[in-house]
Amino acid sequence: MKLPSLMLAAAAIGLIAMQFNAWAADTGESIVGQGVPGKVTPCATCHGVRGEGGGDGVFPRVAGLPAAYIETQLKAFRDGGRSSPLMSPMAVGLSDADISAIATYLERQQPMFFAPPKAEPVQLERGQNLVTLGRWAQGIPSCTSCHGAALQGVEPAIPSLAGQSWQYLSAQLEAYRSGQRAPGPLQLMGRIARGLNSQEIQDVSVYIASLRPGARPEIPRPATPEPYRAKPQSPDTFVPPPESAIPAGPYGELIRFGQSIFEDTPKHAAHYAGNTLSCRNCHLDRGRDPKSSPMWAAYVHYPEYRKKDGLVNTLQMRIQGCFRYSQNGTVPDADSRELTALVTYFYWMASGLPVGVTPKAAGYPKLNAPQAIPSPERGARVYASSCALCHGDNGLGRGRGGEQVFPPLWGPQSFNWGAGMHQVDRAAGFIKASMPYGAGGTLTDQEAWDVAAYVNSRPRPQDPRFSESVEKTRALYHSDHEYDYYGREIDGLLLGAPGTLEQWEKSNK
Amino acid sequence: MKLPSLMLAAAAIGLIAMQFNAWAADTGESIVGQGVPGKVTPCATCHGVRGEGGGDGVFPRVAGLPAAYIETQLKAFRDGGRSSPLMSPMAVGLSDADISAIATYLERQQPMFFAPPKAEPVQLERGQNLVTLGRWAQGIPSCTSCHGAALQGVEPAIPSLAGQSWQYLSAQLEAYRSGQRAPGPLQLMGRIARGLNSQEIQDVSVYIASLRPGARPEIPRPATPEPYRAKPQSPDTFVPPPESAIPAGPYGELIRFGQSIFEDTPKHAAHYAGNTLSCRNCHLDRGRDPKSSPMWAAYVHYPEYRKKDGLVNTLQMRIQGCFRYSQNGTVPDADSRELTALVTYFYWMASGLPVGVTPKAAGYPKLNAPQAIPSPERGARVYASSCALCHGDNGLGRGRGGEQVFPPLWGPQSFNWGAGMHQVDRAAGFIKASMPYGAGGTLTDQEAWDVAAYVNSRPRPQDPRFSESVEKTRALYHSDHEYDYYGREIDGLLLGAPGTLEQWEKSNK
Repeated sequence: MKLPSLMLAAAAIGLIAMQFNAWAADTGESIVGQGVPGKVTPCATCHGVRGEGGGDGVFPRVAGLPAAYIETQLKAFRDGGRSSPLMSPMAVGLSDADISAIATYLERQQPMFFAPPKAEPVQLERGQNLVTLGRWAQGIPSCTSCHGAALQGVEPAIPSLAGQSWQYLSAQLEAYRSGQRAPGPLQLMGRIARGLNSQEIQDVSVYIASLRPGARPEIPRPATPEPYRAKPQSPDTFVPPPESAIPAGPYGELIRFGQSIFEDTPKHAAHYAGNTLSCRNCHLDRGRDPKSSPMWAAYVHYPEYRKKDGLVNTLQMRIQGCFRYSQNGTVPDADSRELTALVTYFYWMASGLPVGVTPKAAGYPKLNAPQAIPSPERGARVYASSCALCHGDNGLGRGRGGEQVFPPLWGPQSFNWGAGMHQVDRAAGFIKASMPYGAGGTLTDQEAWDVAAYVNSRPRPQDPRFSESVEKTRALYHSDHEYDYYGREIDGLLLGAPGTLEQWEKSNK
Repeated sequence: MKLPSLMLAAAAIGLIAMQFNAWAADTGESIVGQGVPGKVTPCATCHGVRGEGGGDGVFPRVAGLPAAYIETQLKAFRDGGRSSPLMSPMAVGLSDADISAIATYLERQQPMFFAPPKAEPVQLERGQNLVTLGRWAQGIPSCTSCHGAALQGVEPAIPSLAGQSWQYLSAQLEAYRSGQRAPGPLQLMGRIARGLNSQEIQDVSVYIASLRPGARPEIPRPATPEPYRAKPQSPDTFVPPPESAIPAGPYGELIRFGQSIFEDTPKHAAHYAGNTLSCRNCHLDRGRDPKSSPMWAAYVHYPEYRKKDGLVNTLQMRIQGCFRYSQNGTVPDADSRELTALVTYFYWMASGLPVGVTPKAAGYPKLNAPQAIPSPERGARVYASSCALCHGDNGLGRGRGGEQVFPPLWGPQSFNWGAGMHQVDRAAGFIKASMPYGAGGTLTDQEAWDVAAYVNSRPRPQDPRFSESVEKTRALYHSDHEYDYYGREIDGLLLGAPGTLEQWEKSNK
């Protein structure tokens, strides 16, 4: 097919899709407003004609939810995966086409907001803390980690939360907690809700419901920072200072700027980021998590000689390596404001930690050698069941509204061959300890090895040091790694698993 | 006087001086070889015709000693300041002119070396440690601090030690220790010798005597570094790792390079040093001394916001400030090998020290406010009695053989107005705690304030940030310092004390 006819065909497919969606939205509007005569009461009775919710928040807002999420829920009510005395009988009367039409219509509706609940500032701040920071040390990621920085939700499985009623939010969290609602994909919400007490569920729900249209939850910033005096701490029981202790003034501002870069590198270090990854994608809990190479441990570990470049690396040089390989980007100068901010953020996090004494938490956890040679084929199955939910069937990550929520694990927006995560052993250690979010340790060691091999056998950008041939470059920079996929993505493609180069190109044109 | 006639006059003076010296050397040779008939036995009887020493080292080598030192010693023997059953009766027969002639002749003789003493390597290493590192924590500077990196001695008071016999060296140290020999200028050698035991005196003497012509003592470098494992330490009782623990390999090499820059900045960071000062001149004991702003304390203190430039400074930026102001030089890039080496050296020194906890030793000691406003006039008298011995009557420092041993405190080779030491309070705290070498704490607080005011009222290079006028620049950068001489060296000149601009120009043409 020549290029002009290819473009014509693509245009035709686009036109058909638009027409289908328009038809589905009309049908959806009709079912929501009038129901299915003789079978289904109009959704609008409880949820409003535009899905705005009702009963002062007893009936949740469904407008603006991801269509796939609505479909999944309605089918679950219909087929028994989720039960509700009100919803289950209704859903039984809906065909797949009805459900799809409802979902298409509702997703298009502007989310409306209930009147903000009455709440004390101290309760809102407690809620904001959990929503934006989570409590990773007890396996509770922040809500924003999965629902997105604007709580906008992610197709297909993760609902938007912004503007939802606090009654509905707290009822669902309590239902997850008690097991009355099934624990959700990968059992994530069940785990998380069981880690919260009723007060915390109230705090989170009230805070989310208090957010106004367009507001994005931000880390609380007390007017008067919590008094904090760094004290010497033991490296193996180290706890970084709390966020609330970030001081006022230019020093604190620079710490916050470093933290912002860490949270959202493409946004705050736009000049240097070469892909959509952020520092926090590999170093969880904003670089604090002891199981994913915490930045406080890195702070006291550099300068150190690295074989990778044959030089003693300062911390600045080490971070430059992250920009070059993990972010496949441009290296900021050692004295750029961005690097100074990151170093200052790490320094502050390391308050009280002894210099040059390696904490147990340094680097990524090491797995024992695998019992069987890591297999991308087996890994593809682990990936499909445990990773694709967030990272996508095609490994390109997931987000919503143009915002990346879950990072791409391969493809043009992921780390390149030169990155540490492209070492299968390192990726396996990270995955075993920390993946999926809030469910670290649930894969077997062999599953972690296999899925790491799978991910690293997928196509990704070339090592910027590439010269002449894969063999020569590998000999120079990657010769001593086991289970190595350096420059071998072509082999990966032959496996026929998801994430072929074709898909990559299609998703990135 | 016009320029040509000025040059003629200078040439004439030079010629006369050369002729006088030639006459003096001839006369000196005659007295050394033949004595003064009827009064003085020939020096050569014991010390050899070229002052090479004799009696297998019992009679010291006097060849190559600084002339002024020889004069001082002979006059001391003659006038009773120093006593010896052999030397005192001889010296009585010498006129001032005889002494001057002997000194001129002997200084010109190439120092000869006795056969090296037999010694175990372990003893030599012990001696080398004391000679090159000293034991500052107990107030014992390294021998090289005052006698010069090549132990070449310094006019007028400090003899060369290289190639001296171990018998003579140990006999003199023992004599200083017992008080049999007067404790020397500022009582320095008396203090130092009392800090050594007899074994250490032997070690030092044997090591120095073992040095061959042209050899420079270097910090011992064990083939196998001492095993050292950094352990968390309390910030207020912190002890940096010993030199002998600097590891092998590229990391250790970079530490040593950083240490070399610290020891001799003009030599090892030649591209950036703008004067003859080295880091160690203000941070004693190679940056380890807790009383002079130790570098291990600085390491855990940065990044920090500084009013000086209105920025959060990384350690690299802070060191760049030293190059710009204290060294009146050029700023190395943040990722230059020199800065990386210095940071790596400081990092290694800080092993075990908690990040962000300020040790008591951080910065320079603070003095209580002075009882009287610090007076350059009084300070000039303190300077003459306690500082000029090493730093020179003209403040331009002292050295020998083209090598700076004691740093210039003002003049074109000293720090500029923008340096921290140009703050009278900081200079006073440093001087009180650490000056003279090995005799810290011997000045009163008021003397330290006064001499700091004197030193800082002397002419020195301009702040590189200078713009428009002293008043305007001072308002921008130096407004909140008490007893301030910022840009006021002209006032200083009016005091008529040593170190006028004329002398500066004369000494530096």
